[in-house]
Amino acid sequence: MAANGAPAVTAEEVEELRKQLETLQASLRKKEAELELVAPYSRSYGRSLVASVLESESQGLSLVGKTIRVGGWVKTGREAGAGAFAFLEVNDGSCFQNIQIMVTKEVAEEVGGLKSLTPTSTCVLIEGVLAQTPPGTKQKVELKATKVVHVGTTDAAEYPLAKKKQSFEFLREKAHLRPRTNTIGAVARIRNALAYATHRFFQERGFLYVHTPIVTASDCEGAGEMFQVTTLLSKIDEEPEEQPPTAEELEALRAQVAAQGAAVKEAKAAASADKEDKEAAKKSKAEVAELLKLKAQLEKAEEAARNAGGIPRTAEGRVDYSKDFFSKPAYLTVSGQLNGEYYACALSNIYTFGPTFRAENSHTARHLAEFWMIEPEMAFCDLQDDMQCAEDYVRYCCRYILDNCRPDLEFINSMIDKTAIARLEQVADSSFKRVSYTEAIEILEGVVKSGKKKFEFPVSWGIDLQSEHERYLTEEVFQQPIIVYNYPKEIKAFYMRLNDDGKTVAAMDVLVPKVGELVGGSQREDRLDVLTKRITDAGMPLEAYTGYLDLRKYGSVPHSGFGLGFERLILFATGLDNIREVIPFPRWPGNAAY
Amino acid sequence: MAANGAPAVTAEEVEELRKQLETLQASLRKKEAELELVAPYSRSYGRSLVASVLESESQGLSLVGKTIRVGGWVKTGREAGAGAFAFLEVNDGSCFQNIQIMVTKEVAEEVGGLKSLTPTSTCVLIEGVLAQTPPGTKQKVELKATKVVHVGTTDAAEYPLAKKKQSFEFLREKAHLRPRTNTIGAVARIRNALAYATHRFFQERGFLYVHTPIVTASDCEGAGEMFQVTTLLSKIDEEPEEQPPTAEELEALRAQVAAQGAAVKEAKAAASADKEDKEAAKKSKAEVAELLKLKAQLEKAEEAARNAGGIPRTAEGRVDYSKDFFSKPAYLTVSGQLNGEYYACALSNIYTFGPTFRAENSHTARHLAEFWMIEPEMAFCDLQDDMQCAEDYVRYCCRYILDNCRPDLEFINSMIDKTAIARLEQVADSSFKRVSYTEAIEILEGVVKSGKKKFEFPVSWGIDLQSEHERYLTEEVFQQPIIVYNYPKEIKAFYMRLNDDGKTVAAMDVLVPKVGELVGGSQREDRLDVLTKRITDAGMPLEAYTGYLDLRKYGSVPHSGFGLGFERLILFATGLDNIREVIPFPRWPGNAAY
Repeated sequence: MAANGAPAVTAEEVEELRKQLETLQASLRKKEAELELVAPYSRSYGRSLVASVLESESQGLSLVGKTIRVGGWVKTGREAGAGAFAFLEVNDGSCFQNIQIMVTKEVAEEVGGLKSLTPTSTCVLIEGVLAQTPPGTKQKVELKATKVVHVGTTDAAEYPLAKKKQSFEFLREKAHLRPRTNTIGAVARIRNALAYATHRFFQERGFLYVHTPIVTASDCEGAGEMFQVTTLLSKIDEEPEEQPPTAEELEALRAQVAAQGAAVKEAKAAASADKEDKEAAKKSKAEVAELLKLKAQLEKAEEAARNAGGIPRTAEGRVDYSKDFFSKPAYLTVSGQLNGEYYACALSNIYTFGPTFRAENSHTARHLAEFWMIEPEMAFCDLQDDMQCAEDYVRYCCRYILDNCRPDLEFINSMIDKTAIARLEQVADSSFKRVSYTEAIEILEGVVKSGKKKFEFPVSWGIDLQSEHERYLTEEVFQQPIIVYNYPKEIKAFYMRLNDDGKTVAAMDVLVPKVGELVGGSQREDRLDVLTKRITDAGMPLEAYTGYLDLRKYGSVPHSGFGLGFERLILFATGLDNIREVIPFPRWPGNAAY
Repeated sequence: MAANGAPAVTAEEVEELRKQLETLQASLRKKEAELELVAPYSRSYGRSLVASVLESESQGLSLVGKTIRVGGWVKTGREAGAGAFAFLEVNDGSCFQNIQIMVTKEVAEEVGGLKSLTPTSTCVLIEGVLAQTPPGTKQKVELKATKVVHVGTTDAAEYPLAKKKQSFEFLREKAHLRPRTNTIGAVARIRNALAYATHRFFQERGFLYVHTPIVTASDCEGAGEMFQVTTLLSKIDEEPEEQPPTAEELEALRAQVAAQGAAVKEAKAAASADKEDKEAAKKSKAEVAELLKLKAQLEKAEEAARNAGGIPRTAEGRVDYSKDFFSKPAYLTVSGQLNGEYYACALSNIYTFGPTFRAENSHTARHLAEFWMIEPEMAFCDLQDDMQCAEDYVRYCCRYILDNCRPDLEFINSMIDKTAIARLEQVADSSFKRVSYTEAIEILEGVVKSGKKKFEFPVSWGIDLQSEHERYLTEEVFQQPIIVYNYPKEIKAFYMRLNDDGKTVAAMDVLVPKVGELVGGSQREDRLDVLTKRITDAGMPLEAYTGYLDLRKYGSVPHSGFGLGFERLILFATGLDNIREVIPFPRWPGNAAY
C-alpha cells in the first residue's frame, strides 16, 4: 500500500547506470592494482601482495619481466636439480593461492642455503623477476628469486603444524598458528567478507550501526545463563584473609552486649531515681558509652563473620554488590535487542553487530560461550517487512562471498562440503518460502502420519520446533530456505507482538539447509497495556522494564527486528561441522585460551 | 626502496577514472533515491525517510505535489490559526533535519484532535502532499497532512525530556530516550559514519577484519585492571549455604583420625605377630576401614570449611578456579593486540574493531570502563609504514564525516564546539608532523627554560609524556596533529621493538588537538632472543607468552600495529567534553544501567 505516485525515473534507467558503475569500478580496481603493486604500508620492505599479482586481470601475465618482492610463509618447499635450486610455495594470506618462487643455491647462499628456506612456515621476503610458467602449470607465473631479503627460520622438527593434514581438534589447541592452514585461512577471509557484507548491506540501506553495551545490569529476557562481571573475586586472592570470629566468640560478644544492656538499664534507673545524684548520672553515661562500644564491636565481628569467604555480604548473607565495580550485579550481554529498540525508537533503522555470551555448559558443535550477533531493528516495520529484510540480508551475504571469495569457496567446496557453492547460489538466487507455524505443524504431522518420517520429539500444535523438525522442513520438504512465522505465544518471548487471534505472536524464524535456524525475529509489542500484561503474566517484575515500557508510553511506534548468529551464517556458508572452527579464538566450557 | 619498475598505467589515468566513478555514483544515488522513495522495510506502512526528501538533490522541490508518508517523533508542535491547524516539526533520525508538517483540525479529528499530536516525542505517521514553503523558510518544502495514519501519544506532563535544554548529566540518566535529542542523535550518526569509515578504509586496502576474543584467560601486558568473568559468584546467592564445620569440630575430627591411626597400628602389629590369628587379621582390616572412613570425613569437612564463603577453595585457601566456567580465571580483554598479531603473522594485514575493558576506578571525563578499539596489525611493516597507516586512517575518517555528516557537524559546530569543522578540515587536508621523543623533550625543556610555559609535571628525557605536555605540543607548538616516535624503552611495553641505540623502542603516539593521545602503536619485537630477554627483564613469566614467542620461533616477520580508542576519535570529531556522551550506553564505576 505504498502511497507514492509514479517515480520520476524508470527502474531500467537505474539498472543501466548500476551496470555502467560496476564496469567502471572493476576497471578502476584493476588499474589501481597495477599502478600500485607495492602493498599499502609495506613500502619500507617494497613488498607486493600475492593477491595483487595472481588475482590481477591477467593473473600476473601482464607483470612478466618485472622485478617485485613478495613475502609470506612457506607452505611447501622442495629442493630440486640435485640441490641446485628449490621451489617454494609461499602464501601471504591476501588470497587463497600460493605464489611459486624458484630460488637457486647461489641466491640462497647468503641466508644459510636452501635448507633454511624450505621448511613449512618459514617466513621469507624475496625479490625476483616474474616469469611465465610452462603451459599446464597451476599458476600462470612464478617468481625467479634474485635476492632473499628476509628469512624468519622455522625448525621443521619442532614446528607443531607439519605438512600433513592435522585434525581440527588438534588445530584448536594451536589457535595462534592455525590461521596458517588452508582451511582456517579460507574461513578467516570468508568471515571477513561476511562481516563487511553485513555492514555494506545495512549502510547502503540507511541503517545506523549502534554499539550496544557488553556489560549490563539488566537481563534481556532471561535468555539463558549469564556470565557475571565482577571485581570482587580477585580480591579474595589478593588480600590476606583475616581470621573470622568463631560462633563461640560471637555468642560471647552477644552475651556481653546483653549484660551491658542490663547494666545500662540499672544505672539509668538509679540516675533517674535521684536526678541530683551527679555520680549516678555519670555512671549511667559511662555504662551507655560502654554499651555502644560493645555494640560496635559486635557489629564489626558479625560483618567479619559474614565476609569470611572474602566476598562482602549483606546482613542477610547475600553478596553485597554495593561493593562491586558497578554497585550492582553485572553480566555479559545475551542480546543487544532491548538497547537496539531504544535507538530504533529514536533514529528509525539501526543494527548492532557485536559479541554476545551464554554461560551454558554446552559442549556441542553448535554452541559457543562467546559469539557474534547481528541485530537490526526497524521503526514503522511490521512482520512482513521484517521477513523481507532478513531474506534480503542473507541473500546479499551469499551473493557477496560468491563474488568476492571464489577461490576460498572452491577450496571449501572441494575439501569440506561439495554442496557449499550450490547451496550459496540457490540461496542467493531464489526467494524464501514463507510458511506459517500452523502450516508447518500440519506438514510435519502429515509426514509422521503417513509414516514417511519419524521424529525423536513428537509433533503437535503448540510445540517448540526442534532442530530435527526445522531441518526436515527446509532440507527435505522445501529443499530451500523457508521462513516460519506466527508462532504460539506460549513458546515465544514476552516482547513479541500478540496477533489478533490472541493465540499467536508475530514471530518468525528463517530456517536454512545444513544449519536449521539462522535468524529469529519478531514484530515487537508496541501497545503499552498488552506489553504490561505480558510481562506480569510471565511473572517478571515491571520495574525491571521501566525503560522498555517508556518506549510505549512516550511516542510508541510499530517496530520489528531480528537476530542472526554470525557463526551460524559462516557454518552455513562453509559447511564446516563444528562452530569452533569458524571463530578465531573459540570459547567453550573449560576453554578461554589465548 | 620499492622494487617495482614503472607502472603500466599513469596516475592521471586512474585519477580520471576515479572522477568518472564518483560522478556516476552520485548520479546513481540520487536516481535511486527518487525511484525508491518508500524506505526499505517500511513497505507495509508506505513510509518515506525524511532524509530521502530533504537531503535529495532538489531538497524536496522535485517532489512537490506528490503524496507521501513520513513518520517520526515530534520535536516541537504548536497550534496556530486559533486552533484551526498545527505545525509539527518531525524528526525520524535518518538525518539531522526535521520535516515540517501542517495538520488541520479536520485531519486531526479522527485521532483525538491537534492536542494529541503536538506534545514533544509524540510518534506520528502522516500522509500528505508535499508543498513548497514561502521563500525565507528554513526548509524548501513542507508536508500538508491529508491523513494521520498512526499516533503514539505522549503525556507532555510526564515526558522526562521536555522541550527545553537538558543537561548532559540528566540525559545520561535517560539513556533510553536521549537519542531523541539533537546532540545525541547527531553523535549517533557521526559515530555510525566513523565506524563505517573504519571498515571501508581497511577493507579498501585489503585488510581482514578479525574478531579477537572478549573473554580471555591471558592478560595482554598487565595493561591496567581487569574485570573478571565468572559463574562462581551467582552460586552463592542461589544455593542455601550449609553451615560449615567450626574449628573445634575440625580439631575433634583430626584427633579422632589420629587415635584411629594408633588403633590401626596396634591391630596391624597384633595381626603380624601371629599370622595364623584370623580374628586379629579381621580386626586389623576393620580398623583400617574405619580409619579410611574417618579420613574421608575429615577431608570433606576441611573442604566444607574452605568453601565456607560459597566460593570453592583450594587446599591453600585460594579460589578454586577449576570449578569456574572456563576452569581458569578469565577476564574481559584489555586489548586484542596479541590475538591480532597471531592473525597478521599468517594473513599479513588485519584489523580488529571491538569492545575492550578497564576496571579502573576512574570517574574522569576521558575514561570509560567499556570502550571500543580499532587495532590494525601489519606484516612486513616497520614503524615508518605504521605511522603512515595511522595518519592515513585518521585523515580518511575526518574526510568521510565531512563528506557524509555535514548537517550534523554544522549543528555540532554551532552548538558544541565552534572549531569542530575547521579542526576536521585541517586534519583531513594536511600531513602529520613527525617528531622524535628526544626532539619533543628538547622543545618542552626549551619552553620551560624560557619561562614561556609552566607544567605541573617536570620535563626531562625519560619521563612519560603527560596529557598537558602532549596537548601543549599539538595545540600550541605545532598547532596540528603530530606523531611522536622512538620513546625510551623504560616507559613502553615489552613487545615494542628495541632500536639500535639500545635505549629507545620503535613506538609512536599520534597526538591531536583537543584530545591529546589518539593513537598508540609500535613496531613489534620480532627477534626471539631480544623478546625473551625483555619479558624476563620485566619480571614476567615466559610460559604466559608461549604462543607469542612461537610467532618469533616459527617464521618470524617484521610487523607493526597500533590501537585507536574509538570514543577518543568521536570526542575529537565533535569537541564534546565528556566521553560518556559519545557511546550509547556508557559504563563507569557504579553504572551499568540498561
